[in-house]
Amino acid sequence: MDSHPVHRPSGSETAVTAAVDIGGTKIAAGLVDRDGTLRHRCQVPTPAQESAESVFAAVARAVDALAEHPLWPRATAVGVGSAGPVDIRSGTVSPVNIPGWRDFPLVEQVLKHPAIGDRPVVLGGDAVAMAAAEHWRGAARPYRNALCIVVSTGVGAGLVLDGKVHPGPSGNAGHLGHISIDPDGEPCACGSRGCLEGLASGTAIARHARAAGWRPSGGDDSAVAVAQAAGAGDPLALAAFDRAARALAVGIAGTAALVDLEAVVIGGGVAQAGELFFAPLRRHLDDYATLSYTRGLVVAPAQLGTDAGVIGAAALALGATH
Amino acid sequence: MDSHPVHRPSGSETAVTAAVDIGGTKIAAGLVDRDGTLRHRCQVPTPAQESAESVFAAVARAVDALAEHPLWPRATAVGVGSAGPVDIRSGTVSPVNIPGWRDFPLVEQVLKHPAIGDRPVVLGGDAVAMAAAEHWRGAARPYRNALCIVVSTGVGAGLVLDGKVHPGPSGNAGHLGHISIDPDGEPCACGSRGCLEGLASGTAIARHARAAGWRPSGGDDSAVAVAQAAGAGDPLALAAFDRAARALAVGIAGTAALVDLEAVVIGGGVAQAGELFFAPLRRHLDDYATLSYTRGLVVAPAQLGTDAGVIGAAALALGATH
Repeated sequence: MDSHPVHRPSGSETAVTAAVDIGGTKIAAGLVDRDGTLRHRCQVPTPAQESAESVFAAVARAVDALAEHPLWPRATAVGVGSAGPVDIRSGTVSPVNIPGWRDFPLVEQVLKHPAIGDRPVVLGGDAVAMAAAEHWRGAARPYRNALCIVVSTGVGAGLVLDGKVHPGPSGNAGHLGHISIDPDGEPCACGSRGCLEGLASGTAIARHARAAGWRPSGGDDSAVAVAQAAGAGDPLALAAFDRAARALAVGIAGTAALVDLEAVVIGGGVAQAGELFFAPLRRHLDDYATLSYTRGLVVAPAQLGTDAGVIGAAALALGATH
Repeated sequence: MDSHPVHRPSGSETAVTAAVDIGGTKIAAGLVDRDGTLRHRCQVPTPAQESAESVFAAVARAVDALAEHPLWPRATAVGVGSAGPVDIRSGTVSPVNIPGWRDFPLVEQVLKHPAIGDRPVVLGGDAVAMAAAEHWRGAARPYRNALCIVVSTGVGAGLVLDGKVHPGPSGNAGHLGHISIDPDGEPCACGSRGCLEGLASGTAIARHARAAGWRPSGGDDSAVAVAQAAGAGDPLALAAFDRAARALAVGIAGTAALVDLEAVVIGGGVAQAGELFFAPLRRHLDDYATLSYTRGLVVAPAQLGTDAGVIGAAALALGATH
């Protein structure tokens, strides 16, 4: 046999995808391997209350920081996930929690950044990106039809249908937080009433616990403190988690009836409460997901934590450029 | 120039698709052209309360009747739409309103029918078939993302996503009638509570009108009579339509938030009431579909009427065999 040496590219020689994840409090950026491993990560705070230009200057600084990394020359595409609503047709974003950006031409601005060169830029909503990440290398990997939810200060979600992320024509599909499950309920900032987010978010859990008479032992009256109290058996705190879990179960059951899901993946701060949240959620799902094809839905915690936004933005760019 | 005659196939020489639409009251069958025109139609009553064998014998008679038509030899595939739930993975059906059929092996039985030969048989849910028909040659044709709804004694629906019908893994996706929009509401036969069907169907409209004190002038107290009374200005009848339209608007708005729709197409008996139903529906949609990408949803009446089931079953077979 011949014994010519075989040359294989080393890890550092393979292509990577650049990714930026823009949220209301921080802008994270990273370089992601073709297998979904985050090779480098950096972040800057979001000056969310400042002008459109100031917010974009922070994005530009995050890109500058990425561009200094030795892997940057191997980046073949740039994925950008943003708080929504987004419009992937026009490349614009109008994040609720960044008031200076309304129909802000994010893709156009990123393309103008000198470090980008001729790399394609792909925009997605942050919850759709999270779903892409969990489907690529997280808890949704085994499933062709899944709903991936983030329950934290708000409730966001993205859909995987027929084995692919489903952004919808505008890029906002999966927006579970603003389906109404109580049409006569409280007015929501979105203009509707009784939205799931107003019942199931961490903010809603803390508000409901306080309204029911729960008082924190320390100064912290956030959902984290409610979770601690629930873990210690406080009935008011437990009731607040149960109420949120029920609202989420109603929304999940409705989504399963509509698009025919195999699994639900849940991340975000509230999901950190673990079985305090998952146990009542599964119990309420038994009550509301009663159709032959919605019963026995798999409910799994998310696996990628706060890296999901960056990894998912890379997944969206990779999906669009492959 | 040469003047050799050009031979084109005449209409009767082109291929057709055979289709069967199985509902709780009738079984319709037809032969459908490649352009979606129904070339032949026949129907038999459904012996819905009889044994599994008796119900299938009625299906077999409908197929026999089709097979006598001169176009039958040109049928290349057979589409079967059935009342749900269905399971397109196993080819079985368990229609709520045909109690003798539970996990009934419909595809296997149709394949065994002598007239079928080696034609492929494709199963779909009836509401998914209706959506396929409206997308193929009805009101949903201009749209790549649409929800097609039948509001009659129940509420069924099917989804078109990214330009294709979305049956979901089990074939039941789009099942709008059993999403809960009132989690504390009335128990539903499905096991959940406050389902949309219990608020927006024709049955619900008639029940609500009677409960509110409406009395028919004749003996008919169905939703049709309520629609006539509403058309004459009866406030109780108008209120019953308004309540149903509001419930449907909540469900449509939630679906639009979840999958990002461009249009909603509505057929069925209740939609026959025209603007008595569509006007309050659009008004309530303004209140609940408030997100940037859900506002201004097109709402259109269905175009194919009771032929949608047969044409749609053909569309599903054609989509799966092309």
